[in-house]
Amino acid sequence: MAGVTSASMYVHVVKNKTYGNISYTNLSEQLAKILRMGANDQSVIDRLNWMRDVLGPMLKEAMEIAGEIDLKLMLSQALHMGDECHNRNVAGTTLLIQALTPYIVQTTFSNKDKIDVFNFIKSSDYFSGPTWMVLCKNALDAAHGVPYSTILTTMARNGVDFGIRLSGMGGNTWFTGQAGYVVGPLFAGFKAEDSGRDIGDSAVTETYGIGGFAMSTALAIVSLVGGTVSDAINYTKKMYEITATENPNVTVPILNFKGVPTGIDIRKVLETGVLPVINTAIAHKDAGIGMIGAGITYPPMDCFKKAAIALADHIKSIEN
Amino acid sequence: MAGVTSASMYVHVVKNKTYGNISYTNLSEQLAKILRMGANDQSVIDRLNWMRDVLGPMLKEAMEIAGEIDLKLMLSQALHMGDECHNRNVAGTTLLIQALTPYIVQTTFSNKDKIDVFNFIKSSDYFSGPTWMVLCKNALDAAHGVPYSTILTTMARNGVDFGIRLSGMGGNTWFTGQAGYVVGPLFAGFKAEDSGRDIGDSAVTETYGIGGFAMSTALAIVSLVGGTVSDAINYTKKMYEITATENPNVTVPILNFKGVPTGIDIRKVLETGVLPVINTAIAHKDAGIGMIGAGITYPPMDCFKKAAIALADHIKSIEN
Repeated sequence: MAGVTSASMYVHVVKNKTYGNISYTNLSEQLAKILRMGANDQSVIDRLNWMRDVLGPMLKEAMEIAGEIDLKLMLSQALHMGDECHNRNVAGTTLLIQALTPYIVQTTFSNKDKIDVFNFIKSSDYFSGPTWMVLCKNALDAAHGVPYSTILTTMARNGVDFGIRLSGMGGNTWFTGQAGYVVGPLFAGFKAEDSGRDIGDSAVTETYGIGGFAMSTALAIVSLVGGTVSDAINYTKKMYEITATENPNVTVPILNFKGVPTGIDIRKVLETGVLPVINTAIAHKDAGIGMIGAGITYPPMDCFKKAAIALADHIKSIEN
Repeated sequence: MAGVTSASMYVHVVKNKTYGNISYTNLSEQLAKILRMGANDQSVIDRLNWMRDVLGPMLKEAMEIAGEIDLKLMLSQALHMGDECHNRNVAGTTLLIQALTPYIVQTTFSNKDKIDVFNFIKSSDYFSGPTWMVLCKNALDAAHGVPYSTILTTMARNGVDFGIRLSGMGGNTWFTGQAGYVVGPLFAGFKAEDSGRDIGDSAVTETYGIGGFAMSTALAIVSLVGGTVSDAINYTKKMYEITATENPNVTVPILNFKGVPTGIDIRKVLETGVLPVINTAIAHKDAGIGMIGAGITYPPMDCFKKAAIALADHIKSIEN
């Protein structure tokens, strides 16, 4: 592609200080016409080149000075500030950039570059979105491979299939079903038939217990994903029916500071018939256009059934 | 006082673009041992000198580059991010500093000074507190002096008296009663008997319709001011009984995006017996110590009765 002169891509690096595992994510391209959502015109390429040449190296230098930023504490703060940290990231983004600012100022870049970076980050509330995804990925990786565990450690979609991984299966065994459509408001000029099927790895947030699971912390998100304030509260309440525990570090003020519903247990999904709720972006079905809206979707029940049968067989094989 | 070499004090300047009136506030000293709360030791003086020599001039230079910042929009955003903008200002502060950052970077100050300023602002969520107070003062000044109006335009306290001003009286006529005590959690080591009576001009936020009136947007504030989540929601609901209208620009997600209760009508206060709820800091009764907690308080009913009688007399005098 014209203008791409190198394969370098800067990433966030998140380390689990308890378990030692490390996870990575690419940087936010902000919204809405971006490569991650299928757009690929010259403006997209130009932005990626700038991210490679300025944003990435500047954040790298800033983080080398900072040493580390405590993301778990920041996530907890963001949820008390009306984010659910999947599609509403306004608080998380302001907290993250506030934490980075003194270090960005100390980098060797020109004031013009620094101002460009601050303005880029301010251009969309989404900047911290990938940060929360990789925090979730990092925590869930540490929970993967626990013998006998019926807890989900991955939910991901590729626009065709919806796949899950199960802690007790360990390794890299996927259980899949057909990816659904996402129901929600579309940007002006688009209609439901333009939507591609559910796509992306952002459902790692719901797998951790935020995003759709924490919509009761983020009532203002209904203007983006649709539905009412009471829908948003009820999504969270419903998820306690299919989760193993509450996260004491990430709490929901409106539910009297109860921890977010955490650890999707496939036994509970199968017993109750309640599916994990996901709020997510809607990508155009055709390549080159990008995000066209956001809304609510669910995984297919199929993949949970397949996972339960496979885990039962796996346990038999361990015990025999 | 030792170390004070000049009377210069930098202030925020807020202009009402509709009515043209201008209002001022001093800058946040952050919390809790500060001059504004009665503390006055050398650390307080040193901080004020630094604010005069570095913080103030840097913000002045940054604002000269920025031109202006739309505070009304930012207030609306902060309430959707869990602030009530009197005692919970974490969102407003991150939004305000994010808006200022590109301009602070452009100032002629050294990187060390810039980093000191960023770290000072990050040292307390309270930095934007005075900003919201002066926004409220600015709006209420524009509402002052409307003939026949029974709407409050001022509530203020000095640790002895609680005073109100009424729009329909115009000018500078105060109606007073005894200032109450503030009930809420105290910082470690202090007890209720250490509290001074309700003090300060911060109740301008409740007069505008935020602060205690908007606690339903800021459920996480209960850890600071005490009470339960449902108390916080009920404070807002109750205030619709004594207010004239809702502010369509400053809305409450949990009440289905209803505007905050706005315009305290003394007729409604007298009819219902419901007093305006104020959440506020608690200052130590002795000079030199400062803030020792935060909680809930109410004005004395006396001042509303006096105001109603005086307004009735005033209207008679106009009409005769």
